[in-house]
Amino acid sequence: MERVFNFAPGPSALPLSVLERAQQEMTCCSGSGMSVMEMSHRSPAYQQIYDNAVARLRELMHIPEEYAVLFMHGGATLEFAAVPLNLTRNGRADYIDSGNFAHVAAVEAQKYTNPVIVASSREDNYAYIPDWRGKLSPDADYVHITTNNTIYGTRYVELPDTGSVPLVADMSSNILSEPYDVTRFGAIYAGVQKNIGPSGAAVLIVRRDLLGHAAPVCPKLLDWALQDKNGSMINTPNTWAIYLCGLCLEWLQEQGGVEAIEKVNIEKAKLLYDYLDESRLFRPTAQKEFRSRMNVTFVTGDAELDAQFVKEAKAAGLVNLKGHRSVGGMRASIYNAMPFEGVQALVTFMKRFEAAR
Amino acid sequence: MERVFNFAPGPSALPLSVLERAQQEMTCCSGSGMSVMEMSHRSPAYQQIYDNAVARLRELMHIPEEYAVLFMHGGATLEFAAVPLNLTRNGRADYIDSGNFAHVAAVEAQKYTNPVIVASSREDNYAYIPDWRGKLSPDADYVHITTNNTIYGTRYVELPDTGSVPLVADMSSNILSEPYDVTRFGAIYAGVQKNIGPSGAAVLIVRRDLLGHAAPVCPKLLDWALQDKNGSMINTPNTWAIYLCGLCLEWLQEQGGVEAIEKVNIEKAKLLYDYLDESRLFRPTAQKEFRSRMNVTFVTGDAELDAQFVKEAKAAGLVNLKGHRSVGGMRASIYNAMPFEGVQALVTFMKRFEAAR
Repeated sequence: MERVFNFAPGPSALPLSVLERAQQEMTCCSGSGMSVMEMSHRSPAYQQIYDNAVARLRELMHIPEEYAVLFMHGGATLEFAAVPLNLTRNGRADYIDSGNFAHVAAVEAQKYTNPVIVASSREDNYAYIPDWRGKLSPDADYVHITTNNTIYGTRYVELPDTGSVPLVADMSSNILSEPYDVTRFGAIYAGVQKNIGPSGAAVLIVRRDLLGHAAPVCPKLLDWALQDKNGSMINTPNTWAIYLCGLCLEWLQEQGGVEAIEKVNIEKAKLLYDYLDESRLFRPTAQKEFRSRMNVTFVTGDAELDAQFVKEAKAAGLVNLKGHRSVGGMRASIYNAMPFEGVQALVTFMKRFEAAR
Repeated sequence: MERVFNFAPGPSALPLSVLERAQQEMTCCSGSGMSVMEMSHRSPAYQQIYDNAVARLRELMHIPEEYAVLFMHGGATLEFAAVPLNLTRNGRADYIDSGNFAHVAAVEAQKYTNPVIVASSREDNYAYIPDWRGKLSPDADYVHITTNNTIYGTRYVELPDTGSVPLVADMSSNILSEPYDVTRFGAIYAGVQKNIGPSGAAVLIVRRDLLGHAAPVCPKLLDWALQDKNGSMINTPNTWAIYLCGLCLEWLQEQGGVEAIEKVNIEKAKLLYDYLDESRLFRPTAQKEFRSRMNVTFVTGDAELDAQFVKEAKAAGLVNLKGHRSVGGMRASIYNAMPFEGVQALVTFMKRFEAAR
């Protein structure tokens, strides 16, 4: 079968050249006579793969030396616990509730600190980023945000100024899609299965002066300082995911890096939103000011018609366009690995679908 | 380059036919037009892959319906925390200290319960399984054992009778290598990177009546009851690892299952131990009665000669034979995926090495 255009929100499309490279190296990686999955994580050959992945991420995001770059188990959800387990001092943390995952992060934090939801757009089905201005506490241990909201298709266009309070960001769905000034953050984490690689791991970028205060009940694998001391290898890491992430990061460098891919991402999103704004059939659901460049949510207003669209699109090789049940309708996730041609194909199909109604 | 015989303790050798299948399906899995890594974990196609893996494990280990079978993040080390986080009631747990990982599990448990080391062979460098008889408390919440000790090359030849106290086993390094009566256990867990698949996940087999008592500080991903309710998908699981495990489990069924592979494993271990027992150069380090069938540890008694052996073996395509620093010398890990021919090649090489001295 031919490859499809895969608009899944995560796990999501990977660059074909990366898959082909992994395919080629499957039974013998780097002249080792074995698959990367069969390599000891303590071997020089694997250490090289790990070091390269970390170095590429550092280069791509211009991460200063005073930040640790780690690969963690379990995706962003495990970091929802790890954040308060590692950063709680005074026992208050400010959470900006801009979507489902932001909310879930705050709920998980209740086990370890007092997470205060200082601003929320929950009552408006998260159609925008709520206004946090004047609501942040100087005594908070950290301020937690979700830079891009996968389900609702919204994105922070401005970062909160948190002064000396560390800003902590879940960047799962837009890391590496646009440049961020890492020095604005105390910590950045991201499940890798959307914009970096396959599922089952998270990257963590954390300012080292924040390390060393893990709670007594923190499982050792979630202890950021201990992971930093052990180069992400307290135990066997997800060696395959780190390898694949390395290949994807190399691919991103070949595309010209984050600054270059941002231009493509802006073009991709513009093509789709421009059509949605002029369409008489489809309507975008996120407030214009806060539109995500990664997840584009839209509806026809008729659930049956939505379902028909998703079905016909699938038959045309445009798959995983069904929206999350919280929003309904459709969602096109157009991460870095989605080529411009994929979005073109989608818009062409949508125009044809609209014309036929 | 040709494939080598890989004696690594984990991550370790995988069946070549499994790697070739994964290679073939890399850009298009099950006619989906995408890699398995690009599939939504909520899609019917992926659910089928997950369900098949669970069903195959159930068949291979004859797991009764009253046990949940789950895939967890992070390997066995995260379960070292999850065990006390899920099973603590009275606040005492008995740990049998038969090796490094058994010890580390008890240390991690100190965060959540009172782990009592009831028997230990630590002072004898874990050369045998310590005797637990008459030392177990009827008030313990559980008894924790490590059925096979990867580093020291020892194995329980008899399981403790714990009465109504649940027996919990870390089976990372010998799961599926020999039949176990699952009903003897309250819970079994295993990092999958030794005998089931690649790294970054663990399987958990737990009697459902033990579920539902997670501690308030338990991160949600470590909550066994919640994972059971969500079919291992509270968040995105390690989809690649589960897929690969499924392929390895299918391969094991093709070999005739656990009962059949046990015969091969006994033959493999016998070939190597028989030679070690007659060799004038090499000496096995584990006490005869407790010899592991999965990890065979041996030394020459001369550290320089050991290093020379490891180096020459590597040049001959027999790799990762260096022993763990705690034991020194050599270790041949001969899990299910190591063919009989690999052990034959090793013994032939050892004989030649000995003859040349």
